[in-house]
Amino acid sequence: MKYDIIIIGSGPGGYVAAIRAAQLGLKTAIVERSKLGGICLNWGCIPIKALLKSAQVYNYLSHSSDYGIQIDGEIKVDFKSIIDRSRTIADGMSRGVEFLLKKHKVDHIRGFGKVKPGKLVEVKDAEGNISNFSTKHIIIATGARSREFPNLKQDGRRIIGYKEAMTLPEQPKSMIIVGSGAIGAEFAYFYNTIGTQVTLVEMVPNIVPFEDEEVSKQLARSFKKSKIIVKTASSLESVEITDKGCQALVQTKKGEEIIEADIILSAVGVQTNIENIGLEETGIETNKGKIVVDEFYKTSVDGYFAIGDIIPGPELAHLASHEAIVCVEKIAAMKPEPIDYGNISACTYTNPEIASVGLTEAQAIEKDYKIKIGKFPFMASGKANASGSRDGFVKIIIDADNDLILGAHLIGENVTEMISEIVVARKMNIKGHDILHSIHPHPTMSEAIMEAVANAYGEAIHVL
Amino acid sequence: MKYDIIIIGSGPGGYVAAIRAAQLGLKTAIVERSKLGGICLNWGCIPIKALLKSAQVYNYLSHSSDYGIQIDGEIKVDFKSIIDRSRTIADGMSRGVEFLLKKHKVDHIRGFGKVKPGKLVEVKDAEGNISNFSTKHIIIATGARSREFPNLKQDGRRIIGYKEAMTLPEQPKSMIIVGSGAIGAEFAYFYNTIGTQVTLVEMVPNIVPFEDEEVSKQLARSFKKSKIIVKTASSLESVEITDKGCQALVQTKKGEEIIEADIILSAVGVQTNIENIGLEETGIETNKGKIVVDEFYKTSVDGYFAIGDIIPGPELAHLASHEAIVCVEKIAAMKPEPIDYGNISACTYTNPEIASVGLTEAQAIEKDYKIKIGKFPFMASGKANASGSRDGFVKIIIDADNDLILGAHLIGENVTEMISEIVVARKMNIKGHDILHSIHPHPTMSEAIMEAVANAYGEAIHVL
Repeated sequence: MKYDIIIIGSGPGGYVAAIRAAQLGLKTAIVERSKLGGICLNWGCIPIKALLKSAQVYNYLSHSSDYGIQIDGEIKVDFKSIIDRSRTIADGMSRGVEFLLKKHKVDHIRGFGKVKPGKLVEVKDAEGNISNFSTKHIIIATGARSREFPNLKQDGRRIIGYKEAMTLPEQPKSMIIVGSGAIGAEFAYFYNTIGTQVTLVEMVPNIVPFEDEEVSKQLARSFKKSKIIVKTASSLESVEITDKGCQALVQTKKGEEIIEADIILSAVGVQTNIENIGLEETGIETNKGKIVVDEFYKTSVDGYFAIGDIIPGPELAHLASHEAIVCVEKIAAMKPEPIDYGNISACTYTNPEIASVGLTEAQAIEKDYKIKIGKFPFMASGKANASGSRDGFVKIIIDADNDLILGAHLIGENVTEMISEIVVARKMNIKGHDILHSIHPHPTMSEAIMEAVANAYGEAIHVL
Repeated sequence: MKYDIIIIGSGPGGYVAAIRAAQLGLKTAIVERSKLGGICLNWGCIPIKALLKSAQVYNYLSHSSDYGIQIDGEIKVDFKSIIDRSRTIADGMSRGVEFLLKKHKVDHIRGFGKVKPGKLVEVKDAEGNISNFSTKHIIIATGARSREFPNLKQDGRRIIGYKEAMTLPEQPKSMIIVGSGAIGAEFAYFYNTIGTQVTLVEMVPNIVPFEDEEVSKQLARSFKKSKIIVKTASSLESVEITDKGCQALVQTKKGEEIIEADIILSAVGVQTNIENIGLEETGIETNKGKIVVDEFYKTSVDGYFAIGDIIPGPELAHLASHEAIVCVEKIAAMKPEPIDYGNISACTYTNPEIASVGLTEAQAIEKDYKIKIGKFPFMASGKANASGSRDGFVKIIIDADNDLILGAHLIGENVTEMISEIVVARKMNIKGHDILHSIHPHPTMSEAIMEAVANAYGEAIHVL
């Protein structure tokens, strides 16, 4: 049987590619050895957001008297229920993808996929049987997995990755989290909120190190306020596993320290699933563990494409999905717009949440932009006060030469729902005053965007 | 002493006008007899959002086991604390305005203000003393108050308006709310959530009658699910006050009905504070209880301006604030853009929340637009599932002739933070596909906007 497109991997890159291809009338198959939906649906974005929601609810419960609601009794974390809820939601989303693929008549080929020369995809199923499928186009979307450092080998029990961290059999009393990117920060917030003593170890001087420095510092303040032990400019040197848990040797700013914990979570980034998928045999060019592609995701070999975490760029589900659409539309001879990699937003679902897009202040200065900066603290926002969520701010970086928005850095409640406005604005090259003259509804957190822009021009109403 | 501008009324129209005027170097005074900040800060947007937050927290508490958190004991509403929290927040915001006005060197003239011919403002203070102030420009921003219907005269005890509804001495066991606009709907959600039996009476066939019909129907479904008794196409004919409460005669679709309740809240809209402010003596033209103005808020008499609820247009704080800025910038001989009244969003902070802007489907059809409609249900959203907030949808109405967005109607969790994206998009005349190609972060509720637009074009990924 000959396909128009076979996609290897069914994450937010792969399954979106499959659905879009089917919409465009292409005969499509998707190869997946595990559950449909990839890491994002099964072991990433969705189940962790479910856990974080439980943490948020717990947080409301433990502060309910601030809101005039009294609890006569004890609040108990039912860790197993929290995990089960998360798994149920992930399974439901995976079944949703299965349903969508079926409705779009996409074939699901079960097994481990591998590209071969001559536009063939070899699939080895669970029993070890091998089949070959012929196709006109192949999209490689095999994604990435938790990265392992040599001095922090994951054993899946005491030293774990994100996958185990969202399915632990019982709640650890203490946890060291190594790495404070989105994954590390989110687990730190989750476990700390429900009562685990969390130590967050970050090698560089700031947590969430890809964010604007002021955002990093705000999150560190919020984390410390909620009793997370934050150790920046620190590295985990070695771990000794004992009967009772782990003893970690951590090099901190103040010298060496032994930190004990039940569990160590390694959240030091991801590495691509690039091994044994036939790239060498097919002659597909790679660089630093990623597949080299052009702006429409064509690899060095005609007919072979790659999208998502396996290619250069930030590892983000929404980016993978959009690459999928552009790649498929190009294959279908449409005229898709290439993606502007400077306008990809990133979110961290801690409390407060973080959302950002574009250049940080440091990057803008390094690139020699003449900038105007506007800031608005949520302390001054009516909605934030009414909600009892005054932590955080909006920071907008404007190009002083042309009034375009170079970057936006938001930290606060619900800011992940607010960043798309800036993405749209930047896509359309909207100037600062156009944001100002777009009347934001009152009372919302989103007014802070308008006020931050106004502040850059000295026109803010609710802040001096 | 002669001012450049005197503003009568310190609500979100008046105080914003004062701050902007001061920023522009104008010698400014504001006349206010009551607390600074007007209804919005003291008796409207802010304190009601504080109450609604308490309701949200209560809701999380009563469903906490869904999220894996058990409460061993009783949950108790401390009504007085809820009210106190709301008052404290309102007072804080009012003091914030006081601080901002002081920092901007705006004089606060205490008393009841009245315009007089010759650009004079007469102010009568609490003791009855009268002073006159001379100025180059007067801005009337006296706002509005709860409207009274003849058959529903407010006595402040059994039959109340929004002001009493947010300061009741004790929680009523039962309440009839007449009128299901934003105010009525928000109080219905608040009181019902904390345990008051609420009957919502609406004259027309749909609640939140200014919203798109599908949004109204969704809110009615959500309200009924949470046990609010919704009576549409019904009118309250008369009320008898008894020792125990109120007996209301309600004409429903099925005939007359007697409904008993502790309290009746009249939420049938607002009426302007247009009486005794010197309009007749000064010769300022009015029409149907509102002051007639041009696009820069000049009244029929030179040097006299009016903004906010006292002029035609929807009664919304964010609109009043923006009118203030345009009015003052025009007075200061700047070149402000006139406001596009077709692009004013409105929010209702129920659960689910509502946010909308532009034309409803019915309005678009009535205006003979050829339309494309896109919808995306939150049921299909990963973030909504992870949050346990699957009610609602995004509905986008696109002009089929030019791909412009005619209207957006959102109902669901946090949608009030998402509508500004559409306001910005519509301001810039962005086409549907530009929204589609603005990569929304995953997993957020805001992705639903992108998917709804895609659905209008038959390109949605996560919905058939």
